Amino acid sequence: MSFELTYVYLDHNATTPLSQEVEQAVIQALPLWGNPSSIHQAGRGPKSLLREARKNLARELQCSPLELIFTSGGSESNNSVIKGVYEKTLGTARCEFITSTVEHPSVLKSFQYLESLGARVYYVPVSRQGILDIDYYERVLSEKTALVSIMAANNETGVLFPVSLLSQKAHEKGALFHTDAVQAFGKIPVSLKDWNVDFASFSGHKFYSLKGTGLLYAKKSSEMEIFILGGAQERARRGGTENVLGIHALGIQANQLKNVGVYFGQMEKLRNRFEERLLESIPGVKINQAQVPRLPNTSSVLIEGVDGETLLMSLDIKGFAVSTGAACSSGNPEPSPVLLAMGLTAAEAQNSLRVSLGWSTTEEQMDHFLETLKSVVQRLRRLAESDVGITYGS
Amino acid sequence: MSFELTYVYLDHNATTPLSQEVEQAVIQALPLWGNPSSIHQAGRGPKSLLREARKNLARELQCSPLELIFTSGGSESNNSVIKGVYEKTLGTARCEFITSTVEHPSVLKSFQYLESLGARVYYVPVSRQGILDIDYYERVLSEKTALVSIMAANNETGVLFPVSLLSQKAHEKGALFHTDAVQAFGKIPVSLKDWNVDFASFSGHKFYSLKGTGLLYAKKSSEMEIFILGGAQERARRGGTENVLGIHALGIQANQLKNVGVYFGQMEKLRNRFEERLLESIPGVKINQAQVPRLPNTSSVLIEGVDGETLLMSLDIKGFAVSTGAACSSGNPEPSPVLLAMGLTAAEAQNSLRVSLGWSTTEEQMDHFLETLKSVVQRLRRLAESDVGITYGS
Repeated sequence: MSFELTYVYLDHNATTPLSQEVEQAVIQALPLWGNPSSIHQAGRGPKSLLREARKNLARELQCSPLELIFTSGGSESNNSVIKGVYEKTLGTARCEFITSTVEHPSVLKSFQYLESLGARVYYVPVSRQGILDIDYYERVLSEKTALVSIMAANNETGVLFPVSLLSQKAHEKGALFHTDAVQAFGKIPVSLKDWNVDFASFSGHKFYSLKGTGLLYAKKSSEMEIFILGGAQERARRGGTENVLGIHALGIQANQLKNVGVYFGQMEKLRNRFEERLLESIPGVKINQAQVPRLPNTSSVLIEGVDGETLLMSLDIKGFAVSTGAACSSGNPEPSPVLLAMGLTAAEAQNSLRVSLGWSTTEEQMDHFLETLKSVVQRLRRLAESDVGITYGS
Repeated sequence: MSFELTYVYLDHNATTPLSQEVEQAVIQALPLWGNPSSIHQAGRGPKSLLREARKNLARELQCSPLELIFTSGGSESNNSVIKGVYEKTLGTARCEFITSTVEHPSVLKSFQYLESLGARVYYVPVSRQGILDIDYYERVLSEKTALVSIMAANNETGVLFPVSLLSQKAHEKGALFHTDAVQAFGKIPVSLKDWNVDFASFSGHKFYSLKGTGLLYAKKSSEMEIFILGGAQERARRGGTENVLGIHALGIQANQLKNVGVYFGQMEKLRNRFEERLLESIPGVKINQAQVPRLPNTSSVLIEGVDGETLLMSLDIKGFAVSTGAACSSGNPEPSPVLLAMGLTAAEAQNSLRVSLGWSTTEEQMDHFLETLKSVVQRLRRLAESDVGITYGS
C-alpha cells in the first residue's frame, strides 16, 4: 500500500489502495499486451491470464467460471442487468420491478430510466435503523415482477440486507433477483451458492484492485439482453477487447478472498473499539445504524453541530481521509440521499461522517484518528458556539 | 515494445504493443490509487491525472476537453452512441438510421438490435474496391434520418471513408453523424475540427495504450441518452469510477499523436514496398483494395489456393503474427463478413490475409517476412497441388 505513511486513509468504501500482489501482477503482465482473441502466439499469454482470473474468481465466489462476465466496473454491471432484463421482458406479463430506496445511483438512475419508459418500479423503504421493510417487499412482489435489485451492503452506512432471503422470496414468485454486491466484495465472505441470486455486481477497485474493472455474475439460466454488443468476447455476452491487465489483477486479488474472514474480525474489532471510545469521549455523538447487521469496516457517525464537509476538510489537513457519503457525489452540497431515505433530517445527514476501515488499518491509526477527531470537533464547535451561543450533548 | 525480439508482430490492427511511455506511466501512477471524486488528498492526484489526459487528447484531436468522455473502449463508445441516439429520438419524426455494410460488429449488432425494436436501418453497400456507394447514401439520407454511423477506416482492409463529406451531407438533412474512428486513431492524423462530426469513437489499445480504455467524442450540442447511468463522473455523461490508470496512459500516449504524420510515411513506404515485391515474387497474389485511399499500415492480401488460417498458423510457427480478419472473430471458421460485403467470394475471402504494420516495424522485419511468406506459400501450394494437381498464377 504505497500511500504516504503519515497519511491515514479511512475511506475504503470510496476506493481501496492496490494490494502489493496487484501492483506486482500489473508490472509483470505489462509485456503480455497481445489481443486474447488472436489465435497466434501474441494472443496466447493474455488468453491464459483471462482463463486463470475467471477460474480464481469462480472458485472463491462459488460459481461456475462461465457464469462470470468481466465488465468495466460496478456501474456497468448494474446498468446492464437492470436495462438488460427490462429489454428482455418487454411486452411480457412481467412488467414490474422492485428495488430499495437506498441503492447506489447506478441502480436508482437505471430504474428511474425504466420508469421514464413506462415501467412500474417499487422502491422498498428502510427504517431509521436502515432495516428493509420486508412487509412492503412481500406486498409488492408478485407474478408481475420481472426483476428485484437489492444491494448486499449499503455503501454509506454499511447496513447488510438479507440477500438469500430476499432472493428466495423473489424466486417463489418466479422473478429474477440481482444484488449490487460492490460494497460486500472483500469485506464479508460472499458465496454465490448460498445467496442463490440470478445476477450479482462486483467492482475491482473496492477490493484492492484496479479501477475500470468489474464483474457481473449471471446465473446460467438467467436471460437478459446484451449490454455491449460486438465481438464474441465473454462468450458473446459482452463485446469489446478484454481489459487483460485489469482482469488479471482481479484474478490475482481473488486469491486474497480466502483471507476475508480474518480481515473481517480485525476490522470489526478496530471499528467497534473506535465507536465505543468515540461515544465515551465526545458528547453529542451517535452511531447511525449501530444496532443492525453491518459491514465490519464501516461507521456512520452523527456529530451534532458539526458540518460533515467542514469536518472532512479539517481532518484532511491533519492527514486523515474520511468521507461524508458516496464518493461519486462528493462536492455535492446536498445531504446524502441514503441517509435522508433512512429518515434522518437534512441537518442530521449533513452532520454525518463516514469512516471506513481497510485491511491494513491499525489500532495506532485509529487511536491517532480518534484523538484528532476529538480536537477538531471541539474546535469547530467552539467556533459555532461563539457564533450562536449553544452547547452540544449536555 | 517488450515482446520477444525474434517475433515479428504484423497484426497491429488487432492490437498494438504498449509504448515505452505508457509502460513507464503505468508503473509511476500505481501509487495514485485514490478515487478522483474524493475531495480529500487521496483524490487530488488521480483527479489531476484525468484533467491532464483530457487536455492532452483534446489538444491533439482538436476539440474541447469537455467534449471527451472516457469509456471502456471502442465497443462501449459505439454502443452508447447508437443506442443513446435511438433512445433520445424515439417517438420523434427522426426514426431512420444509416450505416455501412462493412462496419465493426459493435456497430452492426447495435443497429440490428435497433431493427429488432422496430427502427428502420439502411446499410450503405461498398464496391469490390471497398468504395462506399455515395449515390445510395444520398438516396436514403433524409429529414427522417436520426443518425448516420460510418467508420473512418476499415479494420480489415484499411480502406478510408470520406468522413468530412459524409458528415456534411448528413448535417444538410439535420441528421447526427457518428464515426467509428478506432482504426484511424494513431494511423492517420485525425482532426475533429475538420471532420465536423457529432460523435466519434476511439480505442486505447489500437494506439499503443491499454486495453479497456476508450474515448467518445460528443460534440457539445449533440444529444443522446446516457449509456451508463450512475454518479456524476464525466459531467454526469458516463457513470462509474474512472479507470484512472488507463485514462492516464491514454493521455500520455496522446502526446505521441503529433508524430503520426512521420509514422504514416514510414509505414506506408514499408507497406508499399512489401506489396510491390510480393506481387513480383509470388504468383497468384492480389492486393485487395489497393487502388483506393487506405490506412498506411494495412495490406489485405489474396493468395490463391492458400487457406488464410492455415497460412496464419504456419507463419506463427515461424515467428510472424498476422491475421485473417478482425481479431474479435478469430477462430471463427466463417469467411470475413467484411470481405464478403465487398463482393469477394467465400473462397477469395478465405484465401485472404491481413498484414498490419506498426510504428516500430522495420524494413528488415518486412524483408524477413516476405521471404518466409514466399517459402510457406510455396510449401502449402505444393501440398495442395499434390492433392488436386493444379498450379497457381500461371
